[in-house]
Amino acid sequence: MKNFMGRNFLLTNETAKTLFHRYAERLPIIDYHCHVPPRDIAEDRRISNIAELWLGGDHYKWRAMRSCGVEEKFITGNASDYEKFRAYASIMPSLIGNPLYHWTHLELRRYFGITDILDKSTADAIWQATSEMLAEPEFSVQNLIRRSDVELICTTDDPADSLEYHKKIRDDGFETKVLPAFRPDKCFNINKPGLGAYYEKLGTAAGTEIRDLASLKDALVKRLDFFEEMGCRTADHGLDEFPMFVEPNPYAAEQAMKAALSSDGRDVSPEQLSVLKCEMLAFLAGEYAKRGWVMQLHMGVYRNANAKMMKALGPDTGFDVIGELGIPSVIRLLDWMDSKTALPRTILYSIDPTQNAALGSVIGAFQTAGDGFPKLMQGSAWWFNDSIDGMREQMKQLANLSAFGKFCGMLTDSRSFTSYPRHEYFRRILCDLIGSWVEDGLYPFDPDALAMLVTDICYNNTKNFFGFRI
Amino acid sequence: MKNFMGRNFLLTNETAKTLFHRYAERLPIIDYHCHVPPRDIAEDRRISNIAELWLGGDHYKWRAMRSCGVEEKFITGNASDYEKFRAYASIMPSLIGNPLYHWTHLELRRYFGITDILDKSTADAIWQATSEMLAEPEFSVQNLIRRSDVELICTTDDPADSLEYHKKIRDDGFETKVLPAFRPDKCFNINKPGLGAYYEKLGTAAGTEIRDLASLKDALVKRLDFFEEMGCRTADHGLDEFPMFVEPNPYAAEQAMKAALSSDGRDVSPEQLSVLKCEMLAFLAGEYAKRGWVMQLHMGVYRNANAKMMKALGPDTGFDVIGELGIPSVIRLLDWMDSKTALPRTILYSIDPTQNAALGSVIGAFQTAGDGFPKLMQGSAWWFNDSIDGMREQMKQLANLSAFGKFCGMLTDSRSFTSYPRHEYFRRILCDLIGSWVEDGLYPFDPDALAMLVTDICYNNTKNFFGFRI
Amino acid sequence: MKNFMGRNFLLTNETAKTLFHRYAERLPIIDYHCHVPPRDIAEDRRISNIAELWLGGDHYKWRAMRSCGVEEKFITGNASDYEKFRAYASIMPSLIGNPLYHWTHLELRRYFGITDILDKSTADAIWQATSEMLAEPEFSVQNLIRRSDVELICTTDDPADSLEYHKKIRDDGFETKVLPAFRPDKCFNINKPGLGAYYEKLGTAAGTEIRDLASLKDALVKRLDFFEEMGCRTADHGLDEFPMFVEPNPYAAEQAMKAALSSDGRDVSPEQLSVLKCEMLAFLAGEYAKRGWVMQLHMGVYRNANAKMMKALGPDTGFDVIGELGIPSVIRLLDWMDSKTALPRTILYSIDPTQNAALGSVIGAFQTAGDGFPKLMQGSAWWFNDSIDGMREQMKQLANLSAFGKFCGMLTDSRSFTSYPRHEYFRRILCDLIGSWVEDGLYPFDPDALAMLVTDICYNNTKNFFGFRI
Repeated sequence: MKNFMGRNFLLTNETAKTLFHRYAERLPIIDYHCHVPPRDIAEDRRISNIAELWLGGDHYKWRAMRSCGVEEKFITGNASDYEKFRAYASIMPSLIGNPLYHWTHLELRRYFGITDILDKSTADAIWQATSEMLAEPEFSVQNLIRRSDVELICTTDDPADSLEYHKKIRDDGFETKVLPAFRPDKCFNINKPGLGAYYEKLGTAAGTEIRDLASLKDALVKRLDFFEEMGCRTADHGLDEFPMFVEPNPYAAEQAMKAALSSDGRDVSPEQLSVLKCEMLAFLAGEYAKRGWVMQLHMGVYRNANAKMMKALGPDTGFDVIGELGIPSVIRLLDWMDSKTALPRTILYSIDPTQNAALGSVIGAFQTAGDGFPKLMQGSAWWFNDSIDGMREQMKQLANLSAFGKFCGMLTDSRSFTSYPRHEYFRRILCDLIGSWVEDGLYPFDPDALAMLVTDICYNNTKNFFGFRI
Repeated sequence: MKNFMGRNFLLTNETAKTLFHRYAERLPIIDYHCHVPPRDIAEDRRISNIAELWLGGDHYKWRAMRSCGVEEKFITGNASDYEKFRAYASIMPSLIGNPLYHWTHLELRRYFGITDILDKSTADAIWQATSEMLAEPEFSVQNLIRRSDVELICTTDDPADSLEYHKKIRDDGFETKVLPAFRPDKCFNINKPGLGAYYEKLGTAAGTEIRDLASLKDALVKRLDFFEEMGCRTADHGLDEFPMFVEPNPYAAEQAMKAALSSDGRDVSPEQLSVLKCEMLAFLAGEYAKRGWVMQLHMGVYRNANAKMMKALGPDTGFDVIGELGIPSVIRLLDWMDSKTALPRTILYSIDPTQNAALGSVIGAFQTAGDGFPKLMQGSAWWFNDSIDGMREQMKQLANLSAFGKFCGMLTDSRSFTSYPRHEYFRRILCDLIGSWVEDGLYPFDPDALAMLVTDICYNNTKNFFGFRI
Repeated sequence: MKNFMGRNFLLTNETAKTLFHRYAERLPIIDYHCHVPPRDIAEDRRISNIAELWLGGDHYKWRAMRSCGVEEKFITGNASDYEKFRAYASIMPSLIGNPLYHWTHLELRRYFGITDILDKSTADAIWQATSEMLAEPEFSVQNLIRRSDVELICTTDDPADSLEYHKKIRDDGFETKVLPAFRPDKCFNINKPGLGAYYEKLGTAAGTEIRDLASLKDALVKRLDFFEEMGCRTADHGLDEFPMFVEPNPYAAEQAMKAALSSDGRDVSPEQLSVLKCEMLAFLAGEYAKRGWVMQLHMGVYRNANAKMMKALGPDTGFDVIGELGIPSVIRLLDWMDSKTALPRTILYSIDPTQNAALGSVIGAFQTAGDGFPKLMQGSAWWFNDSIDGMREQMKQLANLSAFGKFCGMLTDSRSFTSYPRHEYFRRILCDLIGSWVEDGLYPFDPDALAMLVTDICYNNTKNFFGFRI
């Protein structure tokens, strides 16, 4: 029997152990997609206790607590931080087989040096010990990032954002590069009340009044240029449940804009929303391609499934679901971009793990870069799939259907400054998979080639695909 | 090499062996969903031979025989019982990898003490031996249940049912509790000729004439009260291929009822069927919630795919198929219940194994009980998925996406009184999975906690989730 | 650690090794579905170099090269054969986990006796050695087939084809039977310009003018008879993304034909296309059943996803994708055939691996042959699924849901004369799976029965299901 999460956690063969300990473990992290607030980095925020760290905004943990029947009071309600932490500790034994069980203990070990098993019986001691440590300077946000050996972070930012914190971080000379990523979802969600106010904000940021399609495009180009200046290398879109693909069409999109602007987002048909989205996505794809950016598409989420809780707590609180993704619509969108504007380097993420094979085949149909890199990439197992099984399956399907050696590997997609051990988790699973192929005689044992392969997937491929200068 | 189905069948590690032999194996069975006829229990039916036992109504075995090209005469036709058994025995070697292979041999071992391998060459001897045993009193239905250590059975009953056999069983003091479960599918299938006759029967049972939506609801409430009196704790619905969700609407439902009643089910549009179903499901959900019942939804079956055989043999004879399930429609239905009437404790079963992940995410969006229990549960691998692979996958996905420690585990969903070894099958797979997590260092080795976990999933969780008093 | 692709490649247990080396390995090949040109066999074509052999028409390899960013010039462009081979060799290390990695090295070993690992550094030596060998007579097409121990090949042929090369092959007394297979897709694709010219060609072949539905059917019957005379035992259809099932209807089909004929395929609605397809499929199913042929349905491909590359390179060049398959439409089509015309022995192949379970259940609903054979069969893991994982999953699902012992096993579906080692690949995976079931105590260890099982799946079942006389 192996020790719980020991030195060779997830490493089941000798080649895997060597690959991990000699190579993967030592590589710095490039976190090309996450949701940490740049302000926290700029101001080097301090965290008061482990409940604030873990339960302040992590809807994975909230959902797990609810699934065990914990009262909302102890999740997002007005119970004390200490009570919330105890409530989380109490459900731990029920989370057997859940990645949260591993993430939680990895964070306790890597940041706090605590190897105890978290449950009701150890909650008090762990609360005490972590509170003391969090009071020390080495637990400031910047120090957590430093200690995690993170070379580069891409945050997720609205086109209207001033990027003032990115400037401050750069000017202050923080060693980790913190770059913005362009996330223009709000610009297309023309069926949401408040559209006028948002466009005003965006217009102000761009120095352009947004009164039609042309001026929206104009404003976005200005913001793209500004993001570029600030070092941005990537844009990100949440396609959620992807609408029927509608052939982009400036005239129909213009009509949709008019309907949206005159009703402040109140009187927009689903067709108009689709028309505008497809038009804008195709337009932006061309702009990204011009700038050499990577376009990330996060696809297929059914948002806010629980109306009562949406009303009570708002979005991103743990009530999203794996939805339906119309692969044929995605194909038509990509093909339109490729034929009519331009398809930039693109990463496709599916919330639905059963689409791994379909996506692996989709990317293969657009690999026409011819520049030594893939053009399309399948993203690492995302969100609900970010588990040992989910990551293994995504990697195996990708290997079966594409060129695994070119894979960009892991990102955190997290709101927390202590979620970097998810890279360790990924790297262990990766090394174990490669090691098992080698030891089973499915791939040659060539130590140098294997070291290069692991280094590429953990580090080089990302750096080169995005064109990061580090 | 391990012996075929030996003492450590399916147990591949030491922790698994200990968990199974010390704990799981010894726990009684709560069979919260099955299709055995209560009359057979009440009358303590005797079974004449193994063909009657195995081939009298088991569409799994019929389908397997047809898949091997066996003539229908030897399946549901007029061949003798002995000939039918021989035909089944002959196909056994072709069933390698099929759960029937294991169920068959488990039943031979556990009930008859026969360890021979069933095939053409052993068929005669096994027929002889089992016929002699079945003639003994210990093979009566009640004794089979006793020998299987079953504490409680929920049968599946129409709201119009008198439940007379349940009464008799209780009055006769049979040690195993046999409770009814409320299955009102016929009340909604308003597009089937014969609706009038059914409503008359239901009306008579309820003492209410069913002439519109209000009187249908009224009749159902009376039957719910009666089932409650008889100890019922759960209702069950077959959603089959789930229709487009239509916002419940008493007016439109009323119109649909009118169309149905005036045409005896002959002139009902698909839209009217959906309207009525959604209205009634939402209504009943509220009623179940009031009574603290568990609602079970069996979803996504495409029924009676083969028209010729439907005409020849009727439903439930082995011609159903994995159909399409519109997860977004299911979400909207659950959300409607939760927002507008009430969402009771609910178990979702999908016939499509590729929906495991989606359902794991769906249940997470409605876990707002806050009473120490989950509100929604994903059902154990169902029907076509009731195999080693299917059960492992369902458990692993559930663990990845939810709180596995709260899982309600196994049910038989069977028409047979010797299918209880499927609980043993499940428990072995469960213990093996948990044991492998522990031995691989993915979960701490804490013998007491592990014993509790296994006991919960095999027994306690079901008892508590349903509120069974045993 | 096992040697790379050694004698026991993919065989992880002793039973597997025995089953493979003593039985499976020695069985001849029946290749019941492939795309090799009969002319190449008839003329005993010679291949000049390994680039011609491997990269002349293999869109799997082209796709892999594009996925690594290789320039099109080195794929389908005007670079030299030598440069193309070097480009392919260079990407090999990135193909870890991809079946191409194994197929490539299996072919080097089995045909050329080369055990070196192909990469940039060995490319020159391998080019040199293989070029010399290919110049020898034992590398002619007929000798490659002989050396692969292929007893029978079914090519894929248009109904208008003269089958002259099949005649020549037979008349020349080539030891391997080379039979035509009937692939009438073009007859139904009435929405493609050029329809008139195609119908003229077909009409000429049949000695019938095609001017309406009746004469199309008449022409096809004549060609069916001719194919039958030439030894044909099977027809094959590419259903691609299957349209909505439309109840076959000669009147509507007639109208669709009229629209198609009068516009030369230019003015045909999607509905008309569906009507005609369903009418013709049902008609042909009856014809196949009459002749005892096997109908193969290859389903769910989204063709030519990349418009730019379709324009540049045409179809079948590596731009097809896993599309959507409406299982309910497939069920209705099969049921229509079974109820109204006749359902022949049929093999269903899905391009989407997530449909394995659904298809396994679909075939079960039509197994009414009663003649000792299944009527429906699930095809071996197809195209994008033709990997270790894909084949294992397909076999396991089939075993869970059907009678695995009746499975027809492997086909090459290839355009190459050195792709027969894919049968070896399949057989190793098969023996390993069966062996692991036995060694884990899930199936009895009975050497004779196991030998028969393996022989059936690798050889006998195919011979008997298709009724090949060899």
